[in-house]
Amino acid sequence: MEPTTRDAACFEAGIKFGALYHQFAGTPVSPDSAASLERAIEESIENQPFCESVEVDILTEKLAEEIEHVPASEREGEPGSGSLAEGEEATSAGYTELTGRYLEVEIVIDHEGTEVVTRMEMEDGYPLMKIESVREN
Amino acid sequence: MEPTTRDAACFEAGIKFGALYHQFAGTPVSPDSAASLERAIEESIENQPFCESVEVDILTEKLAEEIEHVPASEREGEPGSGSLAEGEEATSAGYTELTGRYLEVEIVIDHEGTEVVTRMEMEDGYPLMKIESVREN
Amino acid sequence: MEPTTRDAACFEAGIKFGALYHQFAGTPVSPDSAASLERAIEESIENQPFCESVEVDILTEKLAEEIEHVPASEREGEPGSGSLAEGEEATSAGYTELTGRYLEVEIVIDHEGTEVVTRMEMEDGYPLMKIESVREN
Amino acid sequence: MEPTTRDAACFEAGIKFGALYHQFAGTPVSPDSAASLERAIEESIENQPFCESVEVDILTEKLAEEIEHVPASEREGEPGSGSLAEGEEATSAGYTELTGRYLEVEIVIDHEGTEVVTRMEMEDGYPLMKIESVREN
Repeated sequence: MEPTTRDAACFEAGIKFGALYHQFAGTPVSPDSAASLERAIEESIENQPFCESVEVDILTEKLAEEIEHVPASEREGEPGSGSLAEGEEATSAGYTELTGRYLEVEIVIDHEGTEVVTRMEMEDGYPLMKIESVREN
Repeated sequence: MEPTTRDAACFEAGIKFGALYHQFAGTPVSPDSAASLERAIEESIENQPFCESVEVDILTEKLAEEIEHVPASEREGEPGSGSLAEGEEATSAGYTELTGRYLEVEIVIDHEGTEVVTRMEMEDGYPLMKIESVREN
Repeated sequence: MEPTTRDAACFEAGIKFGALYHQFAGTPVSPDSAASLERAIEESIENQPFCESVEVDILTEKLAEEIEHVPASEREGEPGSGSLAEGEEATSAGYTELTGRYLEVEIVIDHEGTEVVTRMEMEDGYPLMKIESVREN
Repeated sequence: MEPTTRDAACFEAGIKFGALYHQFAGTPVSPDSAASLERAIEESIENQPFCESVEVDILTEKLAEEIEHVPASEREGEPGSGSLAEGEEATSAGYTELTGRYLEVEIVIDHEGTEVVTRMEMEDGYPLMKIESVREN
């Protein structure tokens, strides 16, 4: 069956989410650098076709908390460099890698009059991407 | 309006395409290393939810041709390293970065019985992602 | 032979360049969104250990020129979306993907008193990464 | 002070590590798909200049263990898709994202006769990149 305009609008919304996540996941981020990264992600993805708006919220409190408290043995993220002193906590690096745990995103697509609103956020401790609403004109 | 299962299936298909492209674009690739990269891309994206199959074709002839013939001044891709000799062609590096120009991809999604077939390929000299068909059961 | 502090400083400088390039290459970018991306790249990489400063210049004039003028058949970059009209120029998308062609970067590393200054820029039409100077204290 | 050949060799080694990590971190990976990803990473980075060999080991046992046992509230990784059933464990997805926790890498650089051997592995619960040895001929 041929895809409809509505199908295409939902497909486009998915492309933006996959692009956003896999382009920027892994970026070194700290509470201090979060604001510039939020803005760059928004403006970069807004370049893409049919993309009405992108709103990115990096959860700086959660970021700060995990940079401080996660024991080295359970930490994810950026490999360190070779000269951590004996007993020095790698957390002292003061940053981590961007992952879905620290991200809330809303993307609005308008494709030939069909508007799709999509979100990514934590749900039951897990980051989920989903369509909030579809409006056909 | 609430999203339907069909909307979600198309959204999922888009996520896979955006993920595939932005995870792997930029990877150093040559005609010799193309086969292992194709396979890794396929198996990696097939891990994702609702992903029935991924088929990746890296266009090795085009790759070979452009690595040979593109003049340095028009070449895209990987920044070189500091010691190219005077007059040495950077093309001698023998590789480039993976971009949409060298890729044909087919992804099939099955989401709660709705099957979405999607493709990316060159069209009028430009790589396009699109839905081929949607089948609801 | 054991690596020296100077070796480690040069190694660290390389890590930052490889990270910067492969994290951000492929990001959708336009003349309008270049400034926020420059800043995000700088602040993100400055998070990494031993990184004194990062200065990123995205060549917006070159970007603008190539977005306008490159014929579709020779264009690199972001795959488009499914609904380009017959004969519509994909360049009308108004953006491209970030690659080394559009980037000038200076990174300064300070590792236990050894300062390494490194640059990436176009040379003979090819983007090169190199060490400018090493200063041991 | 002008950089030496040895400096350049260490810089090149760092570039490869940064490139490898930031190109492939975030890739969806499972115990079953790890082998093809290992091989693609090796062959891709070996394309780069001065790169003698790359050996990548993805720690599939650790991968398997964490995919099974990590509670959703502490899990890192790939954002899920919108239709996890009530109470369904996101871990049932059976994959995660590649990060330094699951990687051991050895890269050997040969730059104008200077050989640099570098490794990344977990140390005190933290992934570290370091130079193992430098040999000048």
